[in-house]
Amino acid sequence: MKLRLVVFVVTVLVAAVFLHADEGMWTFNNFPSDVVAQKYGFRPDAKWLDHVRLSSARIAGGCSSSFVSPNGLVMTNHHCAVGCVQDLSTPQNDMVAKGFYAKTQAQELKCPNYELNQLIQISDVTARVNAATRGKTDQQFTDALNAEKAKITRECTAGDDVLCEVVSLYSGGRYDLYKYHRYQDVRLVFAPEKAIAFFGGDPDNFMFPRYDLDVSFLRAYENGRPAATEHHFKWSREGAKDGMLTFVIGNPGNTERELTAAELEHLRDRELPDYLLYLSELRGILSQFQTKGPEQARISNAMLFSVENSIKALRGEYFALIDKAAFAQKTEREREFQRKIEANPEWKKEYGGAWAALAAAVKKDVAMSTPYLFIEKNRGFRSRLYLLAKNLVRAAEELPKPNEKRLIEFADAKIPQLKADLFSTAPIYNELQIETLTFSLTKLREELGPDDDFVRQVLGKRSPREVATELVNGTKLKDVAFRKTLFDGGKAAIDASTDPMIVFAKQVDKHARELRARYEREVEGVVKKNHELLGRARFAVYGTSIYPDATFTPRISFGSVRGWEENGRKINPFTIIGGVYERHTGRDPFALPESWLQAKNKLNQTTPFNFVTTNDIIGGNSGSPMIDQKAEIVGLIFDGNLPSLGGAFWFDESVNRAVAVHSQVIIESLDKVYGAGRVLDEIRPGGM
Amino acid sequence: MKLRLVVFVVTVLVAAVFLHADEGMWTFNNFPSDVVAQKYGFRPDAKWLDHVRLSSARIAGGCSSSFVSPNGLVMTNHHCAVGCVQDLSTPQNDMVAKGFYAKTQAQELKCPNYELNQLIQISDVTARVNAATRGKTDQQFTDALNAEKAKITRECTAGDDVLCEVVSLYSGGRYDLYKYHRYQDVRLVFAPEKAIAFFGGDPDNFMFPRYDLDVSFLRAYENGRPAATEHHFKWSREGAKDGMLTFVIGNPGNTERELTAAELEHLRDRELPDYLLYLSELRGILSQFQTKGPEQARISNAMLFSVENSIKALRGEYFALIDKAAFAQKTEREREFQRKIEANPEWKKEYGGAWAALAAAVKKDVAMSTPYLFIEKNRGFRSRLYLLAKNLVRAAEELPKPNEKRLIEFADAKIPQLKADLFSTAPIYNELQIETLTFSLTKLREELGPDDDFVRQVLGKRSPREVATELVNGTKLKDVAFRKTLFDGGKAAIDASTDPMIVFAKQVDKHARELRARYEREVEGVVKKNHELLGRARFAVYGTSIYPDATFTPRISFGSVRGWEENGRKINPFTIIGGVYERHTGRDPFALPESWLQAKNKLNQTTPFNFVTTNDIIGGNSGSPMIDQKAEIVGLIFDGNLPSLGGAFWFDESVNRAVAVHSQVIIESLDKVYGAGRVLDEIRPGGM
Repeated sequence: MKLRLVVFVVTVLVAAVFLHADEGMWTFNNFPSDVVAQKYGFRPDAKWLDHVRLSSARIAGGCSSSFVSPNGLVMTNHHCAVGCVQDLSTPQNDMVAKGFYAKTQAQELKCPNYELNQLIQISDVTARVNAATRGKTDQQFTDALNAEKAKITRECTAGDDVLCEVVSLYSGGRYDLYKYHRYQDVRLVFAPEKAIAFFGGDPDNFMFPRYDLDVSFLRAYENGRPAATEHHFKWSREGAKDGMLTFVIGNPGNTERELTAAELEHLRDRELPDYLLYLSELRGILSQFQTKGPEQARISNAMLFSVENSIKALRGEYFALIDKAAFAQKTEREREFQRKIEANPEWKKEYGGAWAALAAAVKKDVAMSTPYLFIEKNRGFRSRLYLLAKNLVRAAEELPKPNEKRLIEFADAKIPQLKADLFSTAPIYNELQIETLTFSLTKLREELGPDDDFVRQVLGKRSPREVATELVNGTKLKDVAFRKTLFDGGKAAIDASTDPMIVFAKQVDKHARELRARYEREVEGVVKKNHELLGRARFAVYGTSIYPDATFTPRISFGSVRGWEENGRKINPFTIIGGVYERHTGRDPFALPESWLQAKNKLNQTTPFNFVTTNDIIGGNSGSPMIDQKAEIVGLIFDGNLPSLGGAFWFDESVNRAVAVHSQVIIESLDKVYGAGRVLDEIRPGGM
Repeated sequence: MKLRLVVFVVTVLVAAVFLHADEGMWTFNNFPSDVVAQKYGFRPDAKWLDHVRLSSARIAGGCSSSFVSPNGLVMTNHHCAVGCVQDLSTPQNDMVAKGFYAKTQAQELKCPNYELNQLIQISDVTARVNAATRGKTDQQFTDALNAEKAKITRECTAGDDVLCEVVSLYSGGRYDLYKYHRYQDVRLVFAPEKAIAFFGGDPDNFMFPRYDLDVSFLRAYENGRPAATEHHFKWSREGAKDGMLTFVIGNPGNTERELTAAELEHLRDRELPDYLLYLSELRGILSQFQTKGPEQARISNAMLFSVENSIKALRGEYFALIDKAAFAQKTEREREFQRKIEANPEWKKEYGGAWAALAAAVKKDVAMSTPYLFIEKNRGFRSRLYLLAKNLVRAAEELPKPNEKRLIEFADAKIPQLKADLFSTAPIYNELQIETLTFSLTKLREELGPDDDFVRQVLGKRSPREVATELVNGTKLKDVAFRKTLFDGGKAAIDASTDPMIVFAKQVDKHARELRARYEREVEGVVKKNHELLGRARFAVYGTSIYPDATFTPRISFGSVRGWEENGRKINPFTIIGGVYERHTGRDPFALPESWLQAKNKLNQTTPFNFVTTNDIIGGNSGSPMIDQKAEIVGLIFDGNLPSLGGAFWFDESVNRAVAVHSQVIIESLDKVYGAGRVLDEIRPGGM
């Protein structure tokens, strides 16, 4: 359940008019310790909260992780580290299939493109932002907001090891400056075989009972040496138990819990189905590409997983939205809120127009989103080589501008990430690039129509496959040194470049920018502004004991280990090691790796394997540590059950469950399957 | 726009509470000649109607056609004949790509699996059916209905050249016996290259302006000689003109114009998205399969076309259903109808409960449809070899039963079709069979879950690919003689068979039959019964000047040549030959074949190519003749525009357009591109 990078119109927003007991993805500066104390008899204090925050780290690509030793050892999911594992693999040494263990520190391998962010400080910058935007509307408002954000982050950023972000919370009701310590040298320490990390594959994804050893260990380095991580989690002696109070620290990516009914209908009827159809066709292409040979299978595995995971997650959201009872309840809550606003003349005047404005924005979105998504949001150009070209072309254009005038992703604070991506040595496979680019160009033509001016401009008389083949085989962008030369050469180098992918990206750029400007002005701007109104209205009506919608920034949730009922059947919250041997068929994705077959008799068959809790999580929380009140590791989040996907829109404690790897199966397998004594000694220094 | 064989719950039903002027797919015994006379000044009489009915023929696989000479010459779409063209092709001689023209009658090639049905008689059997079902409900009702239908058709059927069907019209408000003359020896006379027949390919499908020479000529034979077809259409001297009154005779497959709002929502939220996702993934698989080599491309072309066509058609329907204004109008009409029923105590008592019953059936459908569709309706076993095995297994079980006790598709009247299918010599390609069966078994496991008992039973410990490979490579069912032996051997032969696909089909059969029985009882039965109630209620309220929903039986629609407005832009109703040369890019699907490039200077560039009319048609109408009031061919239906896909649910004369090949481009190209003098002389005997 890696963070999906789906482009939805809206992220913003507040939640929880009627808080369910365990509901909430809370910020660290607004954690409801009293509620936890009341329900579970434990009150987290500021010191405890600081410690667990500093022991956790966001993975820039879309996951969460934690420090589990004083020497920078990092725990995350296998599916969050698999990109690195794949990048380090070769046709001769497929570590995704075979797993990896660095027997000595010297054998730890640097991930080509990996970054960890540890949140070291939060400061409230609401007043400053509001001062900058006061009295402004529309484009002026957005420009002023972006300029001020860029200014704040630039002032905050000092050196390559600091990342600063202004986070808009509560629909812009509050702006906080998040300052992170960046770790850019991250190395692979241990990864199990994919066959056990993702046992059950796509069929079992988002399901429970479950048997996934979805864990990997990495290490943060600084100055070529293991980073000193004073704040880190110790390992629990026994791990999670039924009914135990659990906390999850991680970076939920995106929730839409306060979208209006009109927006949810739009999501249900247009955005989700459109994108699901696109992804399903891509899935078919990738799964058939896999049959072309073992090397084709190897190079496309990670992409296929990511696409399948997105499909299942988005379908889960779709299923939630077509649940008429749940939707009606949601609508009823909205109506009640609206009635309260209407009943107060002042509120009505200030906030009452937001619903109609949002409904109008939905209509605009219907009219504008297809070209916007395909041309500016890259749905029509699915290729890493294209993205590199696009970023090089835009960097040359944007970086000479003053910080606050740039496209937001080229602000000073984003440059280290941009460079890490542009100069990553992760391998790029032409054969696969050609297929995905052919596919997406075909979709571009299909969705905009063959007579569309832009389509004619990019395809000319050529077929999508010809264009894709020419671009992929013709470009030199696979060469990192070439990318560096272009980047360093700036606009002059880009203008002079005849590299076909650069030329193509230049050709796309003008139209893409126009679409973006118009979309931001007529859709995103309107949505943002009116959700801010609704955010403020909600404060006015319901007060402050609420949490903001997810923003892929650090949050903490509380809950407890608990099963649930499904169609009248009780689901036990735990599985055990014995279960995976029963489920083993010998055929992918239900085939245990050789190491597990050989270790069978050594393993304690009753060791807990996976388990579920009521913690409120969502995509982006993958790799989150699960801890007890002593702040010790009792599990590792890696998934949610199917009903948890409705968590994008609402939290239903009766069925919404987080799914975790149990701390004990990690110990048991590191010891008896992998003989990974060096890792074991590091995470349980006392010997357990 | 070939008839889609999508399994929707409901077909039935009546239409047109407020008839739009050109709306309606009329039966031949209820044609509104007065309305036509009033609007267009021409009153079709009984003789005219008989002549045009007898000059037309249904294609059993899902299309329409017409006789265009006294010697059995048949005109239909290329996309309706392409199955035959592909079956007759070999790797060395790809007639789909190269086209085909039989210079002499001796060169006309028999299509392996092709059948034409000419409607020779309609008789009203309503009283007889009602007598048989009187006082019966539920399963008894269905059994009695099926038994009586089987009896009636058996009495009617005399010899292999007669096909009888009891057609349920107006939701069972009327039962008519349709007696057809069957032509089972159909031979290929002429087919153009696919590149011009389907110029523009999927991007242009359901679009206009358009340039498709989507025509083929076949010939019906009887006793080894060209059939004598006294009734046939003559060719119009000038063809269609702007504003001209036009008639279309054909077999619209399926409309759902009187589904309730609850049923339409179900279609919108579940059935259409589910099936579209399935098809989109299959599309990806097929398009990638095509890249494996020219032979793989050749053998998968027809399937890819069919899948793409379904996707575009179903997406068009989906777009219609998410149109909030249209849906609201539909709902409003339903409410008004409901209010009238409620206002009359007698009506209320008799019909008032239908809506709630249908809503309850939708809920049942949600719970039951996945296993039903995947296991009984073959969505989980997408393979021609499996379908052959299934039909052989069921034939052995069903045929020994009395006619009226059999599954409906094994009634005596269906046996000729069954045999034609079972013993067809159409080639079967293992490589493609393995891919589609692997795909569908994977979906079966995904949708029912890997722990489902049935899934475990069919897969065991094996992967979908292993099972598919074993079955496809292991079965002898590719051999027609082997199929004949099994069929003739009856139950004993099937019971004794160890052919792996037969064994597999036997294993599936019991569970599939249970699912079907339950689904027919709890969903289809309830739907059928309550739509009958609504059908009768609608008669009671609105009288009889209405047409029944489409049933893939012969219908006639009237309209006129007319453009439309799209986003404020006027669309001209005609394209001309010159346009296709402008649109030619040299790259598939916009690449003209060599023959057209060479003939460019000979062709009159202003000859009309394709055009649009207001005729009310839908999938299944492909290949329908379009005629003027003299009953002369002025065009050939091959498609509808995008808005016409909403025609499944309602007819909007302002935008719904039928798309046809102009009669003149057929003449012009037969003459100057193909030198097909033999065909030309036959269709315009006077010389034109």
